[in-house]
Amino acid sequence: MKVLFIGGIKSGKSFNAEKFSLKHAKSKPAYLATTEFIDDEMSTRIEQHKLQRKDDFVTLEEPLEIYESIVDYEGFVLIECLSMWINNMLYHGFDYENMKNEIVKIMRLNQDIVFVLNDVGSGVIPDNKLAREFVDVSGKLSQIVAAECDEAYHTLAGISTRIK
Amino acid sequence: MKVLFIGGIKSGKSFNAEKFSLKHAKSKPAYLATTEFIDDEMSTRIEQHKLQRKDDFVTLEEPLEIYESIVDYEGFVLIECLSMWINNMLYHGFDYENMKNEIVKIMRLNQDIVFVLNDVGSGVIPDNKLAREFVDVSGKLSQIVAAECDEAYHTLAGISTRIK
Amino acid sequence: MKVLFIGGIKSGKSFNAEKFSLKHAKSKPAYLATTEFIDDEMSTRIEQHKLQRKDDFVTLEEPLEIYESIVDYEGFVLIECLSMWINNMLYHGFDYENMKNEIVKIMRLNQDIVFVLNDVGSGVIPDNKLAREFVDVSGKLSQIVAAECDEAYHTLAGISTRIK
Repeated sequence: MKVLFIGGIKSGKSFNAEKFSLKHAKSKPAYLATTEFIDDEMSTRIEQHKLQRKDDFVTLEEPLEIYESIVDYEGFVLIECLSMWINNMLYHGFDYENMKNEIVKIMRLNQDIVFVLNDVGSGVIPDNKLAREFVDVSGKLSQIVAAECDEAYHTLAGISTRIK
Repeated sequence: MKVLFIGGIKSGKSFNAEKFSLKHAKSKPAYLATTEFIDDEMSTRIEQHKLQRKDDFVTLEEPLEIYESIVDYEGFVLIECLSMWINNMLYHGFDYENMKNEIVKIMRLNQDIVFVLNDVGSGVIPDNKLAREFVDVSGKLSQIVAAECDEAYHTLAGISTRIK
Repeated sequence: MKVLFIGGIKSGKSFNAEKFSLKHAKSKPAYLATTEFIDDEMSTRIEQHKLQRKDDFVTLEEPLEIYESIVDYEGFVLIECLSMWINNMLYHGFDYENMKNEIVKIMRLNQDIVFVLNDVGSGVIPDNKLAREFVDVSGKLSQIVAAECDEAYHTLAGISTRIK
């Protein structure tokens, strides 16, 4: 089973994706943290996330090579989150095609995977070229992921509505 | 009954929340205007809103202390809007915990209340730290409000879709 | 039949609107391209769009006078997109009332029309006054269009969910 949780900033998508994973995993699920760059604000957020998930998950950490990190894990995987991964990939000079290839490989894995992704495309087009690239890549990848997922949920105000 | 209308800028959420209030209120509902800061652009918007609601509502005005303003009102209350209130609260130095406490008190009131809230979290993460704080607080409060509401509606292009 | 596809940047709204048009048109549908201003980034996007639609559509091009461009076309019309048109209209000094009048005329046409529109209102309120005006006009027009449409779809991650 592959499932996408997409929603805006602080929409509750991560929390609901975690609940979903814990409910559906037959053994302890993995939590793949894709965070690489950490400032003070970020580290507060990460601590909050860690508190939320207590000992319910096996934590994996990998900013770039998602496929390699999860291919040998036997069991449910929660990828938290693809948006951070896109950010890391762009920073390290990878482009949309690189990311698309990685995603295609991941989607072919015979594993239960829950993807979390920020919906970043419903504001005005950003002035900043890098931000525009991020929004474009994020949107295009969201389409690829959702097309291959069995279920997709849009989260708003903590409510996840199934859209697929 | 507690109901949330959430949607983007000019999505029609306020208009639909007003229609909903007028339809469900047994007597003349109160319209709690939370506006505090007024520039020319704003005052045009406010006049448009006032024209829209004519004499259908009892108008209350309070930028900060929502609970105090509505606790003695017997009847349906439309809070228009929580986003402006968050803005006012941040400006006056109140933080997320203060706002959360106020919201929790409001949610416990044995009154029919309709909440209007801007969906501000589905664009790129803002550069501006204050804007990021606003988006975070707004998202976290939206989750608390929606969790306690009996119904929640996402409004887009004037169409309010029930999500809870 | 009049139909609206609304969604964020790279949400897949255009692709789905094209599929919808090809599925429902009884003869070759028209594709009304409203693009006027072209930079390198834009021209890449346009080429990608053109490749996508191959010879399936009759291409019409008009940045401003949509009504005049389609009134004599016998058959299905896809307007791609209203957001670009709003942008052009604002640039040429037209205001909301002008646009509203044009939209009202278009909605009265006895023709099958599919409208594509960017959802730009779900991020933070833009600092920039022009961007705010764009968001306001876009939101208000979206309400008029959706109210007159028989069907409306919200597209996110390539998935179009019917909201009307």
